[in-house]
Amino acid sequence: MKFTLTQNDSKSKARAGLVETDHGTIETPIFMPVGTAGTVKAVHQRELDTDIQAQIILGNTYHLYLRPGLEILEKAGGLHKFNGWEKPILTDSGGYQVFSLAGTRKIKEDGVMFKSHIDGSKHHFTPENVMDIQRSIGADIIMAFDECTPYPCEFSYARNSMEMTHRWLKRCIDRFDSTEGKYGYSQTLFPIVQGSVYPDLRKQSAEFIASCDREGNAIGGLSVGEPAEMMYEMTEQVADILPSDKPRYLMGVGTPANILECIALGVDMFDCVMPTRNARNGMLFTSEGIINIRNEKWKDDFSPIDPAIAGYVSTFYSRAYVRHLTISKEILAAQIASVHNLSFYLWLVKEARKHIIAGDFSVWKDQMVKKVSTRL
Amino acid sequence: MKFTLTQNDSKSKARAGLVETDHGTIETPIFMPVGTAGTVKAVHQRELDTDIQAQIILGNTYHLYLRPGLEILEKAGGLHKFNGWEKPILTDSGGYQVFSLAGTRKIKEDGVMFKSHIDGSKHHFTPENVMDIQRSIGADIIMAFDECTPYPCEFSYARNSMEMTHRWLKRCIDRFDSTEGKYGYSQTLFPIVQGSVYPDLRKQSAEFIASCDREGNAIGGLSVGEPAEMMYEMTEQVADILPSDKPRYLMGVGTPANILECIALGVDMFDCVMPTRNARNGMLFTSEGIINIRNEKWKDDFSPIDPAIAGYVSTFYSRAYVRHLTISKEILAAQIASVHNLSFYLWLVKEARKHIIAGDFSVWKDQMVKKVSTRL
Repeated sequence: MKFTLTQNDSKSKARAGLVETDHGTIETPIFMPVGTAGTVKAVHQRELDTDIQAQIILGNTYHLYLRPGLEILEKAGGLHKFNGWEKPILTDSGGYQVFSLAGTRKIKEDGVMFKSHIDGSKHHFTPENVMDIQRSIGADIIMAFDECTPYPCEFSYARNSMEMTHRWLKRCIDRFDSTEGKYGYSQTLFPIVQGSVYPDLRKQSAEFIASCDREGNAIGGLSVGEPAEMMYEMTEQVADILPSDKPRYLMGVGTPANILECIALGVDMFDCVMPTRNARNGMLFTSEGIINIRNEKWKDDFSPIDPAIAGYVSTFYSRAYVRHLTISKEILAAQIASVHNLSFYLWLVKEARKHIIAGDFSVWKDQMVKKVSTRL
Repeated sequence: MKFTLTQNDSKSKARAGLVETDHGTIETPIFMPVGTAGTVKAVHQRELDTDIQAQIILGNTYHLYLRPGLEILEKAGGLHKFNGWEKPILTDSGGYQVFSLAGTRKIKEDGVMFKSHIDGSKHHFTPENVMDIQRSIGADIIMAFDECTPYPCEFSYARNSMEMTHRWLKRCIDRFDSTEGKYGYSQTLFPIVQGSVYPDLRKQSAEFIASCDREGNAIGGLSVGEPAEMMYEMTEQVADILPSDKPRYLMGVGTPANILECIALGVDMFDCVMPTRNARNGMLFTSEGIINIRNEKWKDDFSPIDPAIAGYVSTFYSRAYVRHLTISKEILAAQIASVHNLSFYLWLVKEARKHIIAGDFSVWKDQMVKKVSTRL
């Protein structure tokens, strides 16, 4: 993987760059649609490529490990071949999902025992086997196995957890560096900064992660319920420590405004289920603000969802039609809203990149944050 | 509307033709995807057009009348404008749905009182207002208000019902012929033959329908549970009576084999929820036979769904991937299966048309009926 810094914004810490992988180049800042079980929910691969213009998508280790399972994925030749997505893929480590299974998992120094949410079967994730699993899935970017602390979180828990995450990282690196990709292309490992909302822990973690000198770095444990200001503060502090010649990935963030603010703090990569999950609940993100498509006010609004967004669905379908589909619980409602919201997220980061390169990012960002936060 | 008979098959009653409407020309024999509530479930309008290559779709009067309702549809300028489908649309009369609401509807000579399945509100369908409603929806082809008898059905009930359907038809015709389309293009009314599975009633009904001299004719009340042989027998008898210079539409039929057999009996138009409904349950129709995609045997079959079908999804996605999505209850499973099954149905009638024109329909049909009925 190669990262090239194309442009630094003069009035903020925003930057434009290029991440080159064996499956193609990613223009940063970038938003990565979440494809939990090998599918971005309700979206065809062709739509991801040509309408949404996604450059990289996420897969989820926990889900893919359980179903279809590694045997099938290996026989297929990896996730790219299995689902037909030929551009880059990033997999999370599965830690986030496993730790969410409160009551059915046990964390020890060695790793985590957990029960499948599908059939109750018992499984064990360790830093080592999570590297092996992600090798088998065949992601271009592999995430370290970490513990994502909840919010709020006691200082002592956060410190102990962070220290374990650091010890696990060493084991991840040892395993990753002593193994090879299975499908002939290269994979890279991103470590993850933790430390909850405690500045001294975040500093300690960011310095440790930076010292590991991997090809890219991630910021985890944020956007888990803390106030947005606290999330920005932690992000800024960490981003300032992480090396500027490597991409910075802020995990699980966020709203359109969150993404713009964090681009301004020097973040390059984002992922979030919000555009697809909220789509399935009738929330449309547009360049003028947020639409709750269930509202009566849209019932005879025959204007397109968002004429500013180039993708097919955003200009083809009217708000009135999408409202009708949503009220009628039609599958097409979820399809349209998902493709539209992702098209909007990708449009947003592409516009941000343009403005960074044009040199007027900060002015544009402040206007845009207001717009995208408005309820229409 | 204009119907041109292009070719009669020499060894069967199959024929190829053209139906010209103000929204474009339909090549017959044709299959019409069902878009109950103004959407073919799980299918984008663009996919209907370019992948499935649908030439006409159905809308459902009962559903559209209740939601979004006529006020919205009229404001939109009709269903074509509302959902963005610019090719022909046929609407059923709503009778079939209303009569299915056993216990919540009352049939009288004047019309049918029924309660909405959505909110329990009371409504009244009459031959007259069903014409007005279909005028407002703006379908190119409008269906008469009839009673679709269940199977089995006592002779006396079938006779009385058929006679009422005939009286209702006169009222439909009076209303239709004394009103005009609302959106500047012409609409046409198809009457419907009833008579359950009784040859003398079918004969009587077909002769009456033929005598009404409309631009096309439909055969209703079949494929409601009777044996296939009985359905073929009734279809043949009725098709022989209905004029050959007008399209014949067999309502609600059917399996791929049913469609091929009924093309051989002189039917030109078909609709059925089977390709989309069964898609949502994991059944894939292919040119080699029927696939239950949930079966273990497909878990590592990385071949495409059906390489013979040109549409995007049929060649792009593998059987193993679609199985994974289906088992995982992913929305994309329904999307892929729906687009594929409809692509297959449209491919099948297009192939039938080619073979009618080439003069080898009967031989091809017998081979194809065997293939498409095989369980893979």
